[in-house]
Amino acid sequence: MVTVRVFITLKPSLLDSAGRTVAESLHKLGFDQVEGARIGKMIELHLREFDDQGVKAMCDKLLANPVIEDYRYEVVA
Amino acid sequence: MVTVRVFITLKPSLLDSAGRTVAESLHKLGFDQVEGARIGKMIELHLREFDDQGVKAMCDKLLANPVIEDYRYEVVA
Repeated sequence: MVTVRVFITLKPSLLDSAGRTVAESLHKLGFDQVEGARIGKMIELHLREFDDQGVKAMCDKLLANPVIEDYRYEVVA
Repeated sequence: MVTVRVFITLKPSLLDSAGRTVAESLHKLGFDQVEGARIGKMIELHLREFDDQGVKAMCDKLLANPVIEDYRYEVVA
């Protein structure tokens, strides 16, 4: 079995309001070193077998929204 | 400026219903090689300076729920 980790992030040009809220909350807790935060998703897929085209298709069809999100993935084991 | 990526995952013993739904949806789309999926969060923090204790405190106090979640982080640049 192969584990693939998919990382999905909002495109850099888009405002990440949840990330901004996290950064503001960290400031309120006294973490003044925080200049910003952005939130993404990590999806761990357990696959019977790895095939690059398959994982790409899963990302494009279901896991990510290519209009507003970027994704990358890595094979873990 | 330092970028730190925090990865937050549900503890392995807990049922990840969102992950299960993703796996079922992938099956319905014909991706039969998927045996399971688990969903986590990735938070990218931009910090003026990195200090390990600080990032740990941010995770424990705000970013993760230590009762049900595990976290790890890596310094990117």
